[in-house]
Amino acid sequence: MFLLFLILYFGNFGIIYFTLKGKKQCFLLLRQQQFTVQTILCLSETVSQQMIKFASNLNRESLLDVTGIVMAAPQKITGCTQEDVELSVTKIFCVSQAIPRLPLLIEDAMRSGAELDEEGPQGKAGQETRLDNRIIDLRTPTNQAIFRVEAAVCKLFRDILTEKGFVEIHTPKIISAASEGGANVFKVSYFKGSAYLAQSPQLYKQMALCADFDKVFTIGAVFRAENANTHRHLTEFVGMDLEMTFKEHYHEVIEEITDTFVSIFKGLQENLSEEIATVYKQFPAEPFKFTQPSLILNYAEGVAMLKEDGITMGDEDDLSTVNEKRLGKLVREKYDTDFYVLDKYPLAVRPFYTMPSVTEPGYSNSYDMFMRGEEILSGAQRIHDPDLLTERALHHKIDLTKIKSYIDSFRYGSPPHGGGGIGMERVVMLYLGLNNIRKTSMFPRDPKRITP
Amino acid sequence: MFLLFLILYFGNFGIIYFTLKGKKQCFLLLRQQQFTVQTILCLSETVSQQMIKFASNLNRESLLDVTGIVMAAPQKITGCTQEDVELSVTKIFCVSQAIPRLPLLIEDAMRSGAELDEEGPQGKAGQETRLDNRIIDLRTPTNQAIFRVEAAVCKLFRDILTEKGFVEIHTPKIISAASEGGANVFKVSYFKGSAYLAQSPQLYKQMALCADFDKVFTIGAVFRAENANTHRHLTEFVGMDLEMTFKEHYHEVIEEITDTFVSIFKGLQENLSEEIATVYKQFPAEPFKFTQPSLILNYAEGVAMLKEDGITMGDEDDLSTVNEKRLGKLVREKYDTDFYVLDKYPLAVRPFYTMPSVTEPGYSNSYDMFMRGEEILSGAQRIHDPDLLTERALHHKIDLTKIKSYIDSFRYGSPPHGGGGIGMERVVMLYLGLNNIRKTSMFPRDPKRITP
Repeated sequence: MFLLFLILYFGNFGIIYFTLKGKKQCFLLLRQQQFTVQTILCLSETVSQQMIKFASNLNRESLLDVTGIVMAAPQKITGCTQEDVELSVTKIFCVSQAIPRLPLLIEDAMRSGAELDEEGPQGKAGQETRLDNRIIDLRTPTNQAIFRVEAAVCKLFRDILTEKGFVEIHTPKIISAASEGGANVFKVSYFKGSAYLAQSPQLYKQMALCADFDKVFTIGAVFRAENANTHRHLTEFVGMDLEMTFKEHYHEVIEEITDTFVSIFKGLQENLSEEIATVYKQFPAEPFKFTQPSLILNYAEGVAMLKEDGITMGDEDDLSTVNEKRLGKLVREKYDTDFYVLDKYPLAVRPFYTMPSVTEPGYSNSYDMFMRGEEILSGAQRIHDPDLLTERALHHKIDLTKIKSYIDSFRYGSPPHGGGGIGMERVVMLYLGLNNIRKTSMFPRDPKRITP
Repeated sequence: MFLLFLILYFGNFGIIYFTLKGKKQCFLLLRQQQFTVQTILCLSETVSQQMIKFASNLNRESLLDVTGIVMAAPQKITGCTQEDVELSVTKIFCVSQAIPRLPLLIEDAMRSGAELDEEGPQGKAGQETRLDNRIIDLRTPTNQAIFRVEAAVCKLFRDILTEKGFVEIHTPKIISAASEGGANVFKVSYFKGSAYLAQSPQLYKQMALCADFDKVFTIGAVFRAENANTHRHLTEFVGMDLEMTFKEHYHEVIEEITDTFVSIFKGLQENLSEEIATVYKQFPAEPFKFTQPSLILNYAEGVAMLKEDGITMGDEDDLSTVNEKRLGKLVREKYDTDFYVLDKYPLAVRPFYTMPSVTEPGYSNSYDMFMRGEEILSGAQRIHDPDLLTERALHHKIDLTKIKSYIDSFRYGSPPHGGGGIGMERVVMLYLGLNNIRKTSMFPRDPKRITP
């Protein structure tokens, strides 16, 4: 017994149903998750004329419960994932009838990448329509594949880190004060007072390390009240965060993180090749390239590569999104990798809690990581000395009274530590070479969308 | 090389340091996560008088980097987890000095359960003080153990469900309308408008099933704006949610969930017996009992047991917290289990989307699950027929315009399904027999606490 969605009467996308030989038989194309199978009802002792008529009148996307005999197909069936067999139906039951006029057709949601994003007469399956009707949109084989890749990314992240001795923690989303200065933070009414939604679990990860948890990770919602309507920003996304103590050098942290990424990439290649191929079929992209060990470039080297390529920028300027993309291309040409680390950012462009470099004044022990030229992780060694932290906060003109409890966290014995925060939807988007983060968030949130 | 926290100079809890034989040697008791080791500095070629003096002047809870030789202890060391060895120090480096007057002492946070919750002169390590100074509090072996048990619960939940074919999804916390009528929901300022924090991922889990994901789970923050200051309520907690389609009967869902719980309980027994023993040492409790298969009682049977025990209540009244506890005791006496399911709740006490029972009018296909007499899961078969859903919403006098998109979700072909939501912190609290949910939330949130 199966539960399958009726895609259409076989053989004709445009016509609602299609039977052959004076209605003595009827073909149905049925779908279950990523798989499709051809089904046939033939007039016989068990299959009546009425049954064929009933089947012919079912609406597309209705959910059917079908019993039948699996039979070798007389010839290879094209257009189905099950090419060698068909199902000869003996019983058919409609579990749930779909309405006749669907607000979105699966075949529209399945058009190739270029067609899909076009406006105009084809535009009925444009991104907004698809997201408005996400339940139907998510039924495409591509979406079934994307969210299985996403589940695998999280599973790999957790399994790899658990194996390395990290402990999973859960950090609060409701916080009493805006963690990083107060910009871009959502305010919440909290009984008679108010609170904020956490922009990152960073402080709590750090507190867990100060509480001797040594290495921690957490996966959870993070919130950014940025009015940024771009292909890569969401107001709510899933953060894959990790933080760890180290013994000698913050590069121990970089090594642990890059090693985790490489294991994730390998795990996806090994276990999800079918799903990845399914996505590429609708949205063609070059397979994701990475090296082992991962490429680590100093920020200064990155800037030099850009300058050599004709970009004008100061040595300690921050990278624009455009320049990040460009550097990604240059790195791919030179080093043949879509994943790399940019290390030792200028101190001036990083948050106050970033550890300054001792050996290279003006720079810091901080890094970003990139996939296909877009940032997917930002991280650093954090200052664990309360006096230095105070000094840096004052330098950034931060009101010390607002971060007193943060600074006090380091007064009870605290280890040197570093970590980073990873945007889950970005990792999936860039690994698969997709062009919009809304494709990798099941129910995306942006400044203009909080439904469905 | 190790990073260890200095607990105290060995042999004397009350005095800050303690050296022997005219300062020719000094003992340190060091801690790393759940483990403690005795360390000795002896005047020698490598250990100078100054070194001993330096070590003697370190503040408790300072973080040390120690190099030394592991040696068999001349006699069993009591009061350390490492009883058979001690560490003879050759190098000692203070990574981070703690302030001399700590706001909370570890030995106060480690008092036995009864002492700990007492007020009065001992009260300085009462719950509020401990939570105010959570970084220090979390360093106790008990807390190190509790949060490792918690991490294991999540890991087991995910691994077991993944094995069963469930797909992990992520659901938005920011939603446009209060999902269940509007009470107890936090309001968020959202750019120029407003939004709410999700009280549960239920609608999104259901949508994922309607989108043919078949079986899904999600672990994430859920928010309840209830002004409930009890031992078992938090305003933000971690929900372990699952939802699945079924073929014949909603008991397939109950079976899948109870099977998952039993596997979690077994996994904890097998892999975390040391951590569990550590918790029981500070907070004595009877080991958690369960049966396999799990006990499923009908609601009516539960009510009958209570009535027989002298409770006065109507057959279709909801269970009060006190009666739930009492029923838990009766069930334990009769069936020798701390875990059971109460099935077929009266329809009137459940939300509008609960599937009514066809065979037993007045009842519903819904269930709660209990650990040590407290509810840890609430679940049901949900109505997947838009007409019945409309009828039930009208019966509950719910404004149909506010739930239109929810009802529309079921118009495109939708499978029969059910599921439930589990309070993670409650599961850990009740499995370990703890008396307050704040003990199993790393940074708890309640109506009066949103720090640290």
